[in-house]
Amino acid sequence: MKGFIEPIAKLINRFSALPGVGVKTAQRYAYKVISMTDEEAEEFASAILDAKRKVRYCAECGNFTDRDVCDVCRTRSKEVICVVKEPKDVLAFEKADKFEGVYHVLHGTINPIEGIGPNDIRIKELLSRLSDGVTKEVIMATNPDVEGEATAMYIAKLIKPLGIKVTRIAHGIAVGQDIEYADVGSLNRALSDRREM
Amino acid sequence: MKGFIEPIAKLINRFSALPGVGVKTAQRYAYKVISMTDEEAEEFASAILDAKRKVRYCAECGNFTDRDVCDVCRTRSKEVICVVKEPKDVLAFEKADKFEGVYHVLHGTINPIEGIGPNDIRIKELLSRLSDGVTKEVIMATNPDVEGEATAMYIAKLIKPLGIKVTRIAHGIAVGQDIEYADVGSLNRALSDRREM
Repeated sequence: MKGFIEPIAKLINRFSALPGVGVKTAQRYAYKVISMTDEEAEEFASAILDAKRKVRYCAECGNFTDRDVCDVCRTRSKEVICVVKEPKDVLAFEKADKFEGVYHVLHGTINPIEGIGPNDIRIKELLSRLSDGVTKEVIMATNPDVEGEATAMYIAKLIKPLGIKVTRIAHGIAVGQDIEYADVGSLNRALSDRREM
Repeated sequence: MKGFIEPIAKLINRFSALPGVGVKTAQRYAYKVISMTDEEAEEFASAILDAKRKVRYCAECGNFTDRDVCDVCRTRSKEVICVVKEPKDVLAFEKADKFEGVYHVLHGTINPIEGIGPNDIRIKELLSRLSDGVTKEVIMATNPDVEGEATAMYIAKLIKPLGIKVTRIAHGIAVGQDIEYADVGSLNRALSDRREM
């Protein structure tokens, strides 16, 4: 990298590997690191190593945890399981602070174009969680895109024969949004999923 | 931080200390770190420590270097010294690839409101570099804001009595910019600094 001495160039390279970070931004981050105290820089470096070393997947739901089984799985009822694509989706539901069941993180959705089949995501693990008869309902909370819908339908077909209720989260016009500004997809979904009043 | 396990929360905190990074972005960065290989995470952590440990200020110009004296100071003529506020300004000139002299980084500009006086930036160091009689011209390349102008004028007054030419970089309408869209400051500067054709 022209103009940069080696230790700075290397750090800029590392920062550039973060999502959405270009060279300019990576440079600003690198200069910030250089202006940190020794202690701050050391804490930053060990936070990276700690996150990488301590964080693993919950043996039950597949969400991030620093134990074998995560806090949610250890403390909450398994009567309702909410199936999501990624750990950050769990976070979104937890922030909304309404759902009281447990989660199941698929770590992906079925996507034939990218070569991701049913066996590449945590579907088998979901089915084995259902075998103890505790779970009464599975909520499919994958994204409302092609892959998310296909994955939801695929899993629903597998679960229904077990006598367990399968539901899909509602999609439609966002709460607080004007109909005028809603996108076509949401508007059509709001119409087709309309409920009796 | 609600919903995050401790190692992730700590890493998010560290990333949030970077300029312009909010919690959402810090979270994306943290998840990226977790998805890195062990080797990548270790290289990231040591890049931070290396940058902090190896990078220091050039004993001559004050720019970042990993030696005692930087490459520019060791290899180029000191006949012309370009005075800038920060290391990133040196980078901008080096990228423009036209200036062949050396730099002097002030590490700040005079700013009475923030309590930064002439003794808080590297003015003394600049004057002592001029004592060997090699330097024929000092270019003041501080920013065209109040502090940058005041600092340039202050330093010019100190240097002129030494019989050394002091110049100020030109400010005006950016090359390639339409006059229609130029800001008032640049437009007025372009007028007052006009040259005979």
